[in-house]
Amino acid sequence: MKDFFTVTPLKQVFEYIAAFPVVAAETISINQATGRILAQDIRSDEDVPGFSRSTMDGYAVYAASTFGASEGNPAYLTLDGAIPMGKNPSACVVPGKAIRISTGGMLPKGADSVVMLEYATEIDENTLEVYKSVAPGGNVITKGEDIQKDQSLLSAGLMLRPQEIGLLAALGREQVNVYKKPVVGIISTGDEIVPIQNIPGPAQVRDINSYSISSQIVQAGGIPLSFGIIKDNYDALIETYKQALQKTDMLILSGGSSVGTRDLTIEVLKSLNDSKILVHGIPISPGKPTILARAGNKPVWGLPGHVTSAMVVFNRVVQPFIKHMTGTDIARKNHIQRIPAKISRNIASAQGRTDFIRVRLQESDDGLWAEPVLGKSGLINTMIQADGLIEIDMNTEGLDKGTDVSVIPL
Amino acid sequence: MKDFFTVTPLKQVFEYIAAFPVVAAETISINQATGRILAQDIRSDEDVPGFSRSTMDGYAVYAASTFGASEGNPAYLTLDGAIPMGKNPSACVVPGKAIRISTGGMLPKGADSVVMLEYATEIDENTLEVYKSVAPGGNVITKGEDIQKDQSLLSAGLMLRPQEIGLLAALGREQVNVYKKPVVGIISTGDEIVPIQNIPGPAQVRDINSYSISSQIVQAGGIPLSFGIIKDNYDALIETYKQALQKTDMLILSGGSSVGTRDLTIEVLKSLNDSKILVHGIPISPGKPTILARAGNKPVWGLPGHVTSAMVVFNRVVQPFIKHMTGTDIARKNHIQRIPAKISRNIASAQGRTDFIRVRLQESDDGLWAEPVLGKSGLINTMIQADGLIEIDMNTEGLDKGTDVSVIPL
Repeated sequence: MKDFFTVTPLKQVFEYIAAFPVVAAETISINQATGRILAQDIRSDEDVPGFSRSTMDGYAVYAASTFGASEGNPAYLTLDGAIPMGKNPSACVVPGKAIRISTGGMLPKGADSVVMLEYATEIDENTLEVYKSVAPGGNVITKGEDIQKDQSLLSAGLMLRPQEIGLLAALGREQVNVYKKPVVGIISTGDEIVPIQNIPGPAQVRDINSYSISSQIVQAGGIPLSFGIIKDNYDALIETYKQALQKTDMLILSGGSSVGTRDLTIEVLKSLNDSKILVHGIPISPGKPTILARAGNKPVWGLPGHVTSAMVVFNRVVQPFIKHMTGTDIARKNHIQRIPAKISRNIASAQGRTDFIRVRLQESDDGLWAEPVLGKSGLINTMIQADGLIEIDMNTEGLDKGTDVSVIPL
Repeated sequence: MKDFFTVTPLKQVFEYIAAFPVVAAETISINQATGRILAQDIRSDEDVPGFSRSTMDGYAVYAASTFGASEGNPAYLTLDGAIPMGKNPSACVVPGKAIRISTGGMLPKGADSVVMLEYATEIDENTLEVYKSVAPGGNVITKGEDIQKDQSLLSAGLMLRPQEIGLLAALGREQVNVYKKPVVGIISTGDEIVPIQNIPGPAQVRDINSYSISSQIVQAGGIPLSFGIIKDNYDALIETYKQALQKTDMLILSGGSSVGTRDLTIEVLKSLNDSKILVHGIPISPGKPTILARAGNKPVWGLPGHVTSAMVVFNRVVQPFIKHMTGTDIARKNHIQRIPAKISRNIASAQGRTDFIRVRLQESDDGLWAEPVLGKSGLINTMIQADGLIEIDMNTEGLDKGTDVSVIPL
């Protein structure tokens, strides 16, 4: 257990995040921008709407003309035509007059409010009976009420949702500046690893990690680029690393779990140009043998070979680095994407180590329960059964059944 | 308020979901399948792993040879070489013998467990001192322990996460059968609507809805296809509808909010081949004027023109139809994607109507608070400020400050 003294606590690992650069920005169509990270601040050039509009079907009026109107004592107004949609109305309202207007129609001059259709009856072609008074501004969206000219609306780092796409459309912005998706390379290593197309011979296993990690990269907002399986051979590895570093923003090494593969990984990482091993072991379970190096200004990861360990480390450790590189403003309300539940049984945990426990969520009459998924971290099936992870921090010895936990969705 | 009698309650609207067909399936590479919906059941053809493997670096032994070993009374075993990675080990273990093995190495014949590196010392080339006994099966994943041959693993309707992609890789499935993404057409109508590239004239507004709804379609797992802005003209509309219905699995009409546009929408929907208006008005706020029709076996929606109303109706009403068409097994734990909070102030709500209230989430010392975002449903800025929606059902008159609510993330 001596190497526990040289491991880097998770908190300290995260301090390296800011050392790596955010990727460049690009300009794309707003039609392609859902889920992308905004790389510019958005300010309005104009008022939205550009004119006062009715929010109801009814009659544009001068509000005071309706004051005191009731079912027993209606107001009678002179009805004078209708507002056309999409055209500047030439008619204008004076006290005692009403003009038909549709939802979204432009309020004519002199009108300050709209009487709802339901509260009026057209007695004849020229006479409107109004049963209910309307206040000035009633049933109207005024010019600039949604967005004011020069208003600061969105700031860089925001992930664009449908409503932000709609806002950009409202402002007439067909194009938007977003951060590129970082390209994340994956190199699989290990003499026991074979391509998934192969039927594994004795002692061989398929290259699961290249696929599960590629999928995690997509989910994290990156573009995966796989460099295939490289045998445990120094020359072959160093050549592939160099090529991969030229084509990617981050590199992930994964696959083999043998001592030989791990030692070779370290040797190769050390011999890259302008490289430094920053982290060699993290006190987390699963995932202790995780390596983080810097090659130039690019992060290079050595992930554990066990499939579940690699996935958990990606989710809890690598992903925040990718999010940073995508330009995401991490401070922004990410903490709320957790599911509160109660743990369904006692869980032991070693002090001095952060444990990530796979859990399955079970709905019951007394709320949501997080049930630990048991099984070794080499078993992918434990991840299939899991709905999420709970984190037991290094200063906690364990959890009693019924303790409130926050589940990180998987 | 007379049309309140003809509206269709939300629950009844959802009963139409099953009437519409799920889209066809297609076979794609697992590299492209993250987030897609599985269209086949997955069963294993083989055991994974295909052989018993070590989960630790250490020594393959016959467990009984270590029984009783302790720091004070170590066991001494004959050390005989190392297991190569990725090759069938020719050596075999007999009682009293140990062979070096790496994590992931194949357990040799005769061995039933692995002594961890930390609990043994190589005294000389041929002698291993063991300080701690290991149980049979200790530090080993046995053949088929992860996945057994013929085991049923995944079922159609599941959304593929990174772990399911990894599982498919483990089984050697490079291709997977998933449901196609339904193509959802959008037709914008209304004489007041102009393309977003234009500077709106007086009484005109930009076509926000085509963009915000396209983005919502992407989020829901569909492919948006925009048919542009059609003026309020029967012949032009019917022609566009017919073309659009041939190219899409679902059609959404949106944009204009005037009586004229709405009446024309109804007229056109009625005159389509084999069409029927199923729903004309839903007792929800915002979103009461929503229309659902069937044209052949395709759903056709008339959404309210107000941008926020259209987005809320899409999220709460249209989206479940799209999810169904994508083949998603809706019963599967979707209910847990809600954020629990307390409402920050009293909220009034009319009985007989389901209200969807936009809320902003605020973290404070005493937990998470949902703060209603005030503002008319024509204002897109209210959606920008919102983190989610809360639903107040038709039998509730309102909520008191401090009431527990479930926030649907936006």
